[in-house]
Amino acid sequence: MRALVFDDGLKVMDAPIPERGIGQALIRVTFAGICNTDVEVTRGYFAYKGIMGHEFVGVVEDADDTDLVGRRVVGEINISCGECSTCRSGNIRHCERIRAMGINGWPGCFADYVVLPESNVHAVPDSITDLQAVFVEPLAAAIEVMEQVHMRPTDRVAVIGDGKLGLLTAQAIHAYGHRVILLGKHLEKLGIARKTGVDVSLVSDFAGTVDVAVDCTGNPSGMETAMSIVRPKGTIVMKSTFQKGAPMNLTPIVRNEITCIGSRCGPFPPALRLLELGAVDTRGLIEKIYPADQMARAFEKACTRGSMKVLIDFTR
Amino acid sequence: MRALVFDDGLKVMDAPIPERGIGQALIRVTFAGICNTDVEVTRGYFAYKGIMGHEFVGVVEDADDTDLVGRRVVGEINISCGECSTCRSGNIRHCERIRAMGINGWPGCFADYVVLPESNVHAVPDSITDLQAVFVEPLAAAIEVMEQVHMRPTDRVAVIGDGKLGLLTAQAIHAYGHRVILLGKHLEKLGIARKTGVDVSLVSDFAGTVDVAVDCTGNPSGMETAMSIVRPKGTIVMKSTFQKGAPMNLTPIVRNEITCIGSRCGPFPPALRLLELGAVDTRGLIEKIYPADQMARAFEKACTRGSMKVLIDFTR
Repeated sequence: MRALVFDDGLKVMDAPIPERGIGQALIRVTFAGICNTDVEVTRGYFAYKGIMGHEFVGVVEDADDTDLVGRRVVGEINISCGECSTCRSGNIRHCERIRAMGINGWPGCFADYVVLPESNVHAVPDSITDLQAVFVEPLAAAIEVMEQVHMRPTDRVAVIGDGKLGLLTAQAIHAYGHRVILLGKHLEKLGIARKTGVDVSLVSDFAGTVDVAVDCTGNPSGMETAMSIVRPKGTIVMKSTFQKGAPMNLTPIVRNEITCIGSRCGPFPPALRLLELGAVDTRGLIEKIYPADQMARAFEKACTRGSMKVLIDFTR
Repeated sequence: MRALVFDDGLKVMDAPIPERGIGQALIRVTFAGICNTDVEVTRGYFAYKGIMGHEFVGVVEDADDTDLVGRRVVGEINISCGECSTCRSGNIRHCERIRAMGINGWPGCFADYVVLPESNVHAVPDSITDLQAVFVEPLAAAIEVMEQVHMRPTDRVAVIGDGKLGLLTAQAIHAYGHRVILLGKHLEKLGIARKTGVDVSLVSDFAGTVDVAVDCTGNPSGMETAMSIVRPKGTIVMKSTFQKGAPMNLTPIVRNEITCIGSRCGPFPPALRLLELGAVDTRGLIEKIYPADQMARAFEKACTRGSMKVLIDFTR
């Protein structure tokens, strides 16, 4: 099968179709999405070698659970042991022996086939298209913000960063009924958000304060902006990971008694629900779709600064 | 009156006794304590000029509330307007026009007399000595941690930093019944904590994980230690302020979905209560007591790295 592999550089390879274990599903990938985390992996953010990729929609070819066979599915990326004390306490996404598809110890989905535990797999309702379903994983990460923070109907919320994750997060918060403003630096991207009903502003034009600020910038400046706009005793949700440290003065956090919450992957069912409701528009987020034969070019495009979501079409 | 003033340098001056306004108390200072924040003020952390100091115990000489006159008191440092939207929302310690005694827009207590709004003043029960009462302000800041974070009886808590604030914070958490370990770098200071019943360990010897970590180090390394010992989805309480930024990689916060809470000043009544109960030992925290005539030397001593609490005795 075709596969995009990272091993001291990125290579398109002919790899064997993986064999599924007991309780696992073999999935034929239809579409896969390239995430900034994938780009970070190739820059050494994790010590990962193997097939890349963790966002996909596909069809189950084989599984022990016969109900799954032939179903269109998406898959959660974290593979937990189910046995360590963290798993037993219910925090399975923070398993002590965690593996993550295409990131850490588990082959990814930039390939014609991928294997996942059946418990990671979610069936996709018919009303959701493949090009919507491929956004379930990042949309779930956006929804995680509301899983962690109690947003009150009276709260003002700001999402900082008008990249892919920022646009999804602002839409998700808007879909849950909250007053949200997306702060960015690119009028064109802010325009995409505005069409979905979200309030928008250039960061430099924003002078207000907010109760909750969500940093989706992917760089340290987002935290600086967040600290400058959140009210005393307010909340900052941190979505940005970056490989290197940056000079940062966290004194405003202490002085203003801010709560900061790190936020990573999220729950798939509410993401599927929002897409079913038509509450999130994913079309405007697609930069370009490449046939799988051009995976390397697709990845190159995704590495371009400011690129929106690049998809790989494995049906071609 | 004698006063220690900061104005392009630290000076002992003969200043006029301040006049109290309506609803304010004129207090004769008995003892005052020097805090690391005072040291930071002289290093330009705030743009403050005037009489220094914010930790004291004294006796009310004059007030509109005649019940207060002659009472031994301590005083909260934040002076709020009571009118802005933050004050009206109940967050008076984060008033939009806040002033802070000896730090920001309000004369401090390193002087024979200080004036404070009567609402800032708390009477000291007879069973609490002056040398205990002078610790009420920093003890209140230690108690603020439990005001902000729900510590469960099953939680493991670590306080990082064996300086003055760390020793008080560990004792306060211990006094509230929680399992707490103080992590420090100085065997002698850890010994002081151990005598109060707190578990202790050298940072370098500690290999466990905790549910809650409280950084009282006053430098960026405390945050690094906190990130390395707190469990996924755990809580870091940030007590450290420092003037300059430091290179810091906050990715573990995001990856492990840690909650960080900045923490500053705290409530006085529970601090008075803990001292009344005899649940906190302050004797071991005193470095040296200087007569007021030697205020400048006292401040110099407090600036010495690793110094414990230096007190100024205004009865001499």
